[in-house]
Amino acid sequence: MNVLLSGDFGADERARWQRALAAVIPEARWLDEAGARTQPDVVQAAVVANPPPGSLQGLPRLRLIQSLWAGVDRLLADTTLPAGVPVARMVDPAMNAAMGETALWAVLSLHRGFFEYAQRQREARWQVHAQRRADEVRVLVLGQGQMGRAAARCIAQQGYAVTSWRRDGTPLPPLLGRAQIAINLLPLTPDTRGLLDAAFFAALPPGASVVNLARGAHVVDADLLAALASGHLHHAVLDVFHTEPLPPEHPFWRHPGVTVLPHAAALTDPRSAATVAAANLRAALAGQPVAHLVSRSVGY
Amino acid sequence: MNVLLSGDFGADERARWQRALAAVIPEARWLDEAGARTQPDVVQAAVVANPPPGSLQGLPRLRLIQSLWAGVDRLLADTTLPAGVPVARMVDPAMNAAMGETALWAVLSLHRGFFEYAQRQREARWQVHAQRRADEVRVLVLGQGQMGRAAARCIAQQGYAVTSWRRDGTPLPPLLGRAQIAINLLPLTPDTRGLLDAAFFAALPPGASVVNLARGAHVVDADLLAALASGHLHHAVLDVFHTEPLPPEHPFWRHPGVTVLPHAAALTDPRSAATVAAANLRAALAGQPVAHLVSRSVGY
Repeated sequence: MNVLLSGDFGADERARWQRALAAVIPEARWLDEAGARTQPDVVQAAVVANPPPGSLQGLPRLRLIQSLWAGVDRLLADTTLPAGVPVARMVDPAMNAAMGETALWAVLSLHRGFFEYAQRQREARWQVHAQRRADEVRVLVLGQGQMGRAAARCIAQQGYAVTSWRRDGTPLPPLLGRAQIAINLLPLTPDTRGLLDAAFFAALPPGASVVNLARGAHVVDADLLAALASGHLHHAVLDVFHTEPLPPEHPFWRHPGVTVLPHAAALTDPRSAATVAAANLRAALAGQPVAHLVSRSVGY
Repeated sequence: MNVLLSGDFGADERARWQRALAAVIPEARWLDEAGARTQPDVVQAAVVANPPPGSLQGLPRLRLIQSLWAGVDRLLADTTLPAGVPVARMVDPAMNAAMGETALWAVLSLHRGFFEYAQRQREARWQVHAQRRADEVRVLVLGQGQMGRAAARCIAQQGYAVTSWRRDGTPLPPLLGRAQIAINLLPLTPDTRGLLDAAFFAALPPGASVVNLARGAHVVDADLLAALASGHLHHAVLDVFHTEPLPPEHPFWRHPGVTVLPHAAALTDPRSAATVAAANLRAALAGQPVAHLVSRSVGY
């Protein structure tokens, strides 16, 4: 099996993935982008992590493009992506669990006011605030994919009143009107880009908080800053941004109402992800069904 | 039913408790400390929250001392506490749930490095660190009372490798040697005072963290600061202190390796606690068994 491994990761990260993949697919020969350009005829599959645009074209025997990342919006934006080759997203159980952890941590922090306590610690100020029960806190999870479901499960298990929404389901505004915390775990598509805008924030009740763990382009930054400035929104936990790394001058970094994470809500775990990729590569080369195929028209 | 309500709470907090208790015990007449001194013969029960020392003596018809707080170490330290009167701790389901939330939040924060991310945000620094699975993190919960069990349940439910310890069980040092996070939820007694000392911290593996949600006097502050300064301990989450409020000049406030909470890990909820107190008051006056009795010799 000749497999192209292509991505925008650094040398260390590439080496970690290479080791994890080699451990579970010992029969594979791995090519990098230069190797694939030299021997385009031999490449049977590609394992990719935001590969440089163009790196997957001109590979006549390519049978599968397996993403190492769950989000494929950047991959699909490559107009040179060969049309006839199936694309699979990564569905890594360790990553789903990590997303559930981050979502639950954000909910616990917002519910119990741990961000405020951190601020008071910086002021050496001893001040207790009131405490509600978890079942008095209504959490809305946007997205019912692998990660939305993992987040909703962790949060509901801890006693919160959780509702889930998907784009083709019930209308969103009534659900927003009852949500004290809204968590975005939607895929980024033309339909969801900019969904978290002024109208979205206005539909939330006063004092609500938002958590964005999906993609930066889901949020209209200026609208979010305005909703925080007016006091309508209480707090935002943001893991993803229009430009990443978030530029040092961006107001989110120093905003007391914004918690910034460096796109770290859920990392793919090379150990479990390599096993998932291995099963898909073997299936594709054997002409068997591949899991977690992407619909290019839908965008995820 | 004539009940003394006595505590060190402020006027607002007293009014909140008074309302919650009156709602579930409408037949009771409530006396404050001055009222009880005027009519000591009528007081049949006392509902207390760290009452001023001496306020429970000289009440000949007193049948029950019901604490509103779960921890009774300060109450029992009052040498004038009438010897023959049963003392009951508060076991409030809402407070147990809140303790589980705080313990789980501390574990998630330590496991996923959210305290480090908060520090990096203050420096506008975008830097991702490695991610472990929850089942790779070993958590030791000290204490198997109501709150220790609630904490262990929440943490185990989220996939962590949890071990629980009680003082009269297996030896502690081997368990400490395997714990990456140790959470203290022991009662404060002569046997547990100062348990978290230099020897305790040295028994933990390098890079371990401690979470103290029980009593400040469980910790030898100087030993904790030394274990953090040497780099042996990674982080401490502290909700309780030798002196509360924590004095503004205390080094914990500004220590980057210490997260300070203002004794807010779990508040008693007047709504559910009043119901628990009501059942106990009625049982005591009817000569029936009272729940959650304190053993004065054991200290909890």
